[in-house]
Amino acid sequence: MPQRSDAQANRERILDIAEDVFGHGGKSASTEEVARLAGVGIATVFRNFPTKAALLEAVLVRHFNRLQAEAEARLGEQDPGAAFFGFFRHLVAGAATKIALVEALLEAGGFGDSEAAEASHALRRAVGGLLQRAQQAGAVRNDVELPEVYALLVGTSRAAAQAPLDDEVRSRMLAIVFAGLAATGRTKAADFS
Amino acid sequence: MPQRSDAQANRERILDIAEDVFGHGGKSASTEEVARLAGVGIATVFRNFPTKAALLEAVLVRHFNRLQAEAEARLGEQDPGAAFFGFFRHLVAGAATKIALVEALLEAGGFGDSEAAEASHALRRAVGGLLQRAQQAGAVRNDVELPEVYALLVGTSRAAAQAPLDDEVRSRMLAIVFAGLAATGRTKAADFS
Repeated sequence: MPQRSDAQANRERILDIAEDVFGHGGKSASTEEVARLAGVGIATVFRNFPTKAALLEAVLVRHFNRLQAEAEARLGEQDPGAAFFGFFRHLVAGAATKIALVEALLEAGGFGDSEAAEASHALRRAVGGLLQRAQQAGAVRNDVELPEVYALLVGTSRAAAQAPLDDEVRSRMLAIVFAGLAATGRTKAADFS
Repeated sequence: MPQRSDAQANRERILDIAEDVFGHGGKSASTEEVARLAGVGIATVFRNFPTKAALLEAVLVRHFNRLQAEAEARLGEQDPGAAFFGFFRHLVAGAATKIALVEALLEAGGFGDSEAAEASHALRRAVGGLLQRAQQAGAVRNDVELPEVYALLVGTSRAAAQAPLDDEVRSRMLAIVFAGLAATGRTKAADFS
C-alpha cells in the first residue's frame, strides 16, 4: 500500500523537522513553519497533529522512546559500568534538545498526565535497570538509589544546557559525579550527609 | 533624621515582601500587590523602584550580596572542608527561592548586563575562595576547578528546586557529589573523562 507508507513517511518527516526546530531554541515557531520546512501542506500536519501541543508531545514521546531503546540496548553490553556511565554521559550531552522540547511543550500547555510523561517515566525505569546492573557488577556503590541518581542526571543535564557548558567543563563535571558514584574506600556518602 | 530612617525601613520592608512573594512562585504578582502586603502606598514603591524589573533586581542583588557575605564569613572557619561543603549544602537548600527570583527577573525583562549579574559573579568568586581553601587543606581534590564545581552547584540547585526533591533525596544527591569532590585513592576523575 504505497499511500499508507507515504503517509507514514510524511509523519516521520514532520516529526524530524519539528524536533529540529523546537529542540534548538525555536519554541515560539508555528506549526505552519514546520509544515513549510517539511515540504508538506498545512492540512497534512493538522491531520496528524491537531494542535501544536499534540505535535510537540509526539516529538517528545519519540525522543524518550529512542533514549529508552538505547538504554535497554546497553543492558546487553559486556561491561555494566561502562554501559551505565556511557549512557549517563550520552543523556547529558543531548540534554539541551530534550530540555528545549519539554519547555516548548509546557509553553504550549501540554505535559500533564500525558503520553510524554509516561514515556519519560519509562526512560527513568530503563536508567534504573542500568544502575542496578552496574551496582551488581561493583562499578557503582551499593548505597545509592535511583531518586538521587536521577536527580543528578536532571541536574547535570540542566547545568550542561543552561550555560551552555563547553565540552571539557561538562566532561570534568561528570567526572566528579562519576567518581562519587564509584567511590570506594574511606570516603562514604554518610560522611557528608 | 527620623524621616530618612523611615524611608530606609520602608525600602527594606518592600524588599522583604517582594523576596517572599516572587521567591515563592508568585512571579506574575504585581508591584501593587507587593505595596499592599508591605502596607505602604504604591507611590512609595514606585519612588524606590520605578519598574517591576528594578524591584526584582534589587531583591536579587540583596539576596546575592547576603550569600556572598555568608561565604566570606565562612572563609574564617577553622575547618576549610566543612566550610566549603556546608556552604554548598546551604546554597542548594535555598535554591528554589533564588531560581524563582531569577526567573521572575528574566520574565520582567531584566538580568542583562545588570547589577544582579555582577552580584552573582561576586558570589561565584566567593565560592572560588572557599574551594581554594578546601583544596589547600586537602578536603577537596586538587584536580577540580571552579567552572565544573559551579556547574555542579547550579545543576544540583536546579534538580533540588525542580521536582522539588525531599530533604533526604537532596541530601543523598549531595553526598554523591561531595564524595566525588573529596575522592582520593584509585578513583581518579581521568578514569571517566
